Amino acid sequence: MPIIVHKYGGTSMANIERIMNNANRIAKDIQKGYQVAVAVSAMSGETNRLLSLADEIDPFGSGRERDMLASAGEQVSIALMAMALHKIGVGSVSFTANQAGIKTDSFHTRAKILSIDDSRLRAVLDNGKVPVIAGFQGITDAMEVTTMGRGASDTTAAAVAAALDAERCDIYTDVDGVYAADPRIVPRAKKLSRISYDEMLEMAGAGSKVLQTRSVVFAKKYKVPLQVLTSFDDLPGTMISEEVEGMEEVLVTGICSDKTEARLTLFGIPDQPGIAAQVFEALNDDGISVDMIVQSVGHDAHANMSYTVNKTDLGDAIKATERVSKTLSAKETGVDEKVAKVSVVGVGMKSSGGVAARMFRTLADKGINIYMISTSEIKISVVIDEDYTELAVRTLAKEFGLEEEG
Amino acid sequence: MPIIVHKYGGTSMANIERIMNNANRIAKDIQKGYQVAVAVSAMSGETNRLLSLADEIDPFGSGRERDMLASAGEQVSIALMAMALHKIGVGSVSFTANQAGIKTDSFHTRAKILSIDDSRLRAVLDNGKVPVIAGFQGITDAMEVTTMGRGASDTTAAAVAAALDAERCDIYTDVDGVYAADPRIVPRAKKLSRISYDEMLEMAGAGSKVLQTRSVVFAKKYKVPLQVLTSFDDLPGTMISEEVEGMEEVLVTGICSDKTEARLTLFGIPDQPGIAAQVFEALNDDGISVDMIVQSVGHDAHANMSYTVNKTDLGDAIKATERVSKTLSAKETGVDEKVAKVSVVGVGMKSSGGVAARMFRTLADKGINIYMISTSEIKISVVIDEDYTELAVRTLAKEFGLEEEG
Repeated sequence: MPIIVHKYGGTSMANIERIMNNANRIAKDIQKGYQVAVAVSAMSGETNRLLSLADEIDPFGSGRERDMLASAGEQVSIALMAMALHKIGVGSVSFTANQAGIKTDSFHTRAKILSIDDSRLRAVLDNGKVPVIAGFQGITDAMEVTTMGRGASDTTAAAVAAALDAERCDIYTDVDGVYAADPRIVPRAKKLSRISYDEMLEMAGAGSKVLQTRSVVFAKKYKVPLQVLTSFDDLPGTMISEEVEGMEEVLVTGICSDKTEARLTLFGIPDQPGIAAQVFEALNDDGISVDMIVQSVGHDAHANMSYTVNKTDLGDAIKATERVSKTLSAKETGVDEKVAKVSVVGVGMKSSGGVAARMFRTLADKGINIYMISTSEIKISVVIDEDYTELAVRTLAKEFGLEEEG
Repeated sequence: MPIIVHKYGGTSMANIERIMNNANRIAKDIQKGYQVAVAVSAMSGETNRLLSLADEIDPFGSGRERDMLASAGEQVSIALMAMALHKIGVGSVSFTANQAGIKTDSFHTRAKILSIDDSRLRAVLDNGKVPVIAGFQGITDAMEVTTMGRGASDTTAAAVAAALDAERCDIYTDVDGVYAADPRIVPRAKKLSRISYDEMLEMAGAGSKVLQTRSVVFAKKYKVPLQVLTSFDDLPGTMISEEVEGMEEVLVTGICSDKTEARLTLFGIPDQPGIAAQVFEALNDDGISVDMIVQSVGHDAHANMSYTVNKTDLGDAIKATERVSKTLSAKETGVDEKVAKVSVVGVGMKSSGGVAARMFRTLADKGINIYMISTSEIKISVVIDEDYTELAVRTLAKEFGLEEEG
């Protein structure tokens, strides 16, 4: 029998009524002839409640103990979800990460899945029952409890789907799919019926918060289609899958904006090989990851180099930049926090040129200045003044036809 | 170095302030030269909160899933307790039952400890750190999570103390010790500085709620002294230990009352061997446990038999009694829910007679009628009309000198 994995996020687990609702949804897929495995998040607000208790003691306390604490939230959810299934006559067994054999590395609070031992899960499925697996958490070889970062229940679901060779992984969340642009900015933004793994990865990197990026990486690697849909309605969601025919006919699939980054600039550094490496080694040594990088040639064999980092790392990034500035005898350093990154994403760009030109022209027509540009095969990102973010997104959505007609 | 086990109950874990307070207490014992291991309960109210979520779905749901759910409460506590110790510079590692190797049988919601693998706990202690162990929960050989009944964190603590060959197990609770009588009934009841394991077991069986009975059984078996004391103050508590010299000089150590039982009577059953067995096999087959039993010879070779059962089992017990009544052609059956058991306990009774006579005389002087009597080597229990419970306890406390002077 084909297997589907359902994943229910916090808002879908908010109370018993919603949990019973999920149980009925699972029963429906079983009636359709599927075997169903379930991954769940903690009840909405629970992870925050637990971590704020920890913060009362020490906001910078042991990662091991924070994981021990936070993982209790999912343990509550799996038990309640299994009980809800029993209540409507569906056999079910809950699984902690330990019981499901979800092995991770030992980097507490940001562990990565190494392997899943699917034998117990399969035994339960073969017995006609629904395994309900704790999302977010893992277990190390030394039996230490780990967690994998906020939103990681998506990754658990995708990894379980991969391990069970599932036909599909349905991610039930509080939005009913992936939109071509943020509906808070573009009210009539189209809901996408399909998007490719690569587009979704670019969207996630460009500021879309629908899914944890790693869940898409897993799904792509193991070719498991992910569906994003809501548990509050019966609407079809957005299918994230490999590229299918016709996808490239759409030039731009989505537009994202991201205000979480700041821009740093080194002015007047020597224009010679190895300089960029020196700068980014320094940042990397301090554990700072850099997103966009642009180097522009100035004059007198000097260049300017701009890069963006997450605002949470800004303090450290400024220190590292000043250190490197001294070493390279830079003329000046600059920091700009009031910037936003706006990106257009689409596999159609691979076969059709001209998107960049249209994007820059559209922004120019609105008088929006572009500070940085970065491109991938299927994405173009620009950094602009933060104040123009919404205007840029709305104008580009219209330009590339990402609004519903009528 | 000698080891002490601390156990903190729900009220001692009510909030971060109290948890920090416990950490300081642990640090003090370390400064005194002890190695300390800690067992904790869920934060006060948490187990009830979790189980009421379960009850919203199904109050009679799967024991396995109720255990999965409820055990999350202790997981939160161990993490917070370990963080609190870190905060004051005391190394600490939290342990789920799985990590501590607390193996139980697989009777969910009422599992019993089979063994504790002390190797990881000892390694942490030898490393100069404090292991903080989840009370109440266990793990089966099949990696199933179990719980051991309400109040079972006491048992975890005693079992850990036994496994670690601890010098003492300090049970921090919301009362500051064991009293000779319930202070709500006898306001000036003496606090006991010492009580023997056997006396404590009889007190627990007779209605004292201070400790889970099984914790005392463990402590007695492995000869670990238990101390009951409060974490809200610095007063010495009550030491529960083997009998020491002088204990027998006190005739009566404590008085308890218990209103949780009901009395059933079979009137006019044949007065012949094997009848009692028939009655109690019938009750046992239905999973009903009987506390006191009294058989009295009537006339015409007929007898009456009375027994007490917990009121929660009364419905089932009535059914079983009526079935057996038919088989034995009993003349009548009787049910009395308005009864109380009042018991006096003391190792002094072993060497001195006359306690029973004094007890019965004291009750008779107040016009209190005795329905049933049952005795052990160190306990005398009587069943009386529920309305007279407090009067009986107060009068007996005075008679046997269990109030503070002055």
